[in-house]
Amino acid sequence: MNPAPSASSSAIDLRPRAPTAVVAMGGHAFIQPGERGTYDDHARNARMICTELITLVERGYNLVLTHGNGPQVGELLQRMEMTRDLQPPLPLDMLVAQTEGSLGYLLQRALLNELRPRHIDRFVVTMITQVLVDPEDPAFDRPSKPVGPFFSQQEAERCRDHFGWVIGEDIGRGWRRRVPSPRPQQIVQRDMIREAAQAGNIVIAAGGGGIPVAMSSDPDTEDYVGIEAVIDKDLTSGVLASDVDADLLVILTAVDGVYLDFGKPQQRRLGAVTMAECRAYIEDEQFPMGSMGPKVAAIYEFLLRKKGRRGLITDAAHLRESLDGLAGTHFIGTI
Amino acid sequence: MNPAPSASSSAIDLRPRAPTAVVAMGGHAFIQPGERGTYDDHARNARMICTELITLVERGYNLVLTHGNGPQVGELLQRMEMTRDLQPPLPLDMLVAQTEGSLGYLLQRALLNELRPRHIDRFVVTMITQVLVDPEDPAFDRPSKPVGPFFSQQEAERCRDHFGWVIGEDIGRGWRRRVPSPRPQQIVQRDMIREAAQAGNIVIAAGGGGIPVAMSSDPDTEDYVGIEAVIDKDLTSGVLASDVDADLLVILTAVDGVYLDFGKPQQRRLGAVTMAECRAYIEDEQFPMGSMGPKVAAIYEFLLRKKGRRGLITDAAHLRESLDGLAGTHFIGTI
Repeated sequence: MNPAPSASSSAIDLRPRAPTAVVAMGGHAFIQPGERGTYDDHARNARMICTELITLVERGYNLVLTHGNGPQVGELLQRMEMTRDLQPPLPLDMLVAQTEGSLGYLLQRALLNELRPRHIDRFVVTMITQVLVDPEDPAFDRPSKPVGPFFSQQEAERCRDHFGWVIGEDIGRGWRRRVPSPRPQQIVQRDMIREAAQAGNIVIAAGGGGIPVAMSSDPDTEDYVGIEAVIDKDLTSGVLASDVDADLLVILTAVDGVYLDFGKPQQRRLGAVTMAECRAYIEDEQFPMGSMGPKVAAIYEFLLRKKGRRGLITDAAHLRESLDGLAGTHFIGTI
Repeated sequence: MNPAPSASSSAIDLRPRAPTAVVAMGGHAFIQPGERGTYDDHARNARMICTELITLVERGYNLVLTHGNGPQVGELLQRMEMTRDLQPPLPLDMLVAQTEGSLGYLLQRALLNELRPRHIDRFVVTMITQVLVDPEDPAFDRPSKPVGPFFSQQEAERCRDHFGWVIGEDIGRGWRRRVPSPRPQQIVQRDMIREAAQAGNIVIAAGGGGIPVAMSSDPDTEDYVGIEAVIDKDLTSGVLASDVDADLLVILTAVDGVYLDFGKPQQRRLGAVTMAECRAYIEDEQFPMGSMGPKVAAIYEFLLRKKGRRGLITDAAHLRESLDGLAGTHFIGTI
């Protein structure tokens, strides 16, 4: 008996598939230099970036958008610290989840507002995303990521003694809480995100680097438990790009491309780099860890895992030109 | 020429479809009587409810879960008011979006933790959901829904003069801000939610009644704009049940069913009610607007729109018994 034709997910689908782009933008992109970061600032900047992202949609890409949340989760932490006596505090994973909701809403609203007048019939969906981290990650032994408000040394030491915080000084600016920034191991919602994106929906996912969870240390359960940490959104976007089988990983930042000798008189933008060139520049420590380092690393690791793909670093204003090969820094995977 | 077989969404799908249940739970369900509403309280209660919800999954239902956010959005408002001088304030739609993120995360984590040991292979996804309201809704002329912290009369009047708030007194408890509670017109993400649920994924959507948006009053755009309001989550769950073509709408509450003469010596639980009986009880004002009223109305309106469906009101502890017909109040649509 011949098997009946089937539309189930186990059938091989031979239809040509649209290419998929993962785009990562920073939490700072919601606030332009000189702005206070009001709601109106956030809404206007979200709209501006989404206008540029439509270029990818118009060129036939499936689109997965991810975003940072540094300033926004910092605000929530500050609000929480200042009202700690009145309201029960929330752990960091809950605050990251809050920013996934609010920033996802702003982005999905802006995208819908851009799509409708163009009569582009695509769904836009924000998916709350958990990201698995390893409780044995060495990052837990040396919390390094400064988060939340600045304190005096005395206040910071009181929080250390009272709440068990790890604290550190940002030279000249004050003392802050430091939290671990473990590497993203796996995106819990990866299959759902991939299926939604490959079906042509625009997906916003893994905001703020994702909500950090780990497998419980209790051997009697297989539970995910929340973790007080923040995950680097660029590294998560690299994992996400592999998970959704992306053709292109775009990391939007504040500058139009990657520069050698950045900030020096001889600084020059890289146009296109091969894997070998990229590796040499990384070994030459051209890209500092606080800024371009994780972005280049995320793309490099994505291209290592997936052959024949591409990466791009530029700013939102140069996205269209970059897609035309006239701007940005392009990373070319092996074939 | 015969058309080729197609797996596209326009093809008629004749495979039998699993029934779909929409379940609505209150924001208060995350906090049991006597609890402070800490993170641990929220996580434990979310887990307890999700354990019960698995009954529906085990019985073969597709599941869409929605939840309230009253206490949680109140907390965010209170934090915001107390830090207004330090941080730019956020409008209500952004705060609702934050609670969709954080409460959605707690529920999806709890559901995944219940599914894994049972080896039930279903995706769980939280979708950030906008809900369209009508700017001409009479609710905007008389804001009635108390939100956020309590103030003295003097403080409340200062906020009224300074921020344009509508304020009102909760007799004996203090003064609060009142915001409009317009009726939900349409769930912007309805198609995506329906498709995901009918594909067998467990979907958490329209938390807090949904993020209120309206069409811009600017005739030159077709933009959705955010609205400072809160939407009743029970009414939204009724619209959602129609949108996803649900077979069953379950509204979980703090009591095991709907009572006539509730709180009086002769109070008695309703076992099953027809549409005619339901209408008569509503006209008899048996169900007060602040508690059972919107729940019964949501189910009644859903059953009016969709023939042959069912509704159920009970508490989480009696869900399994109710599905067996041994508890709860059942609403029976016409055939």
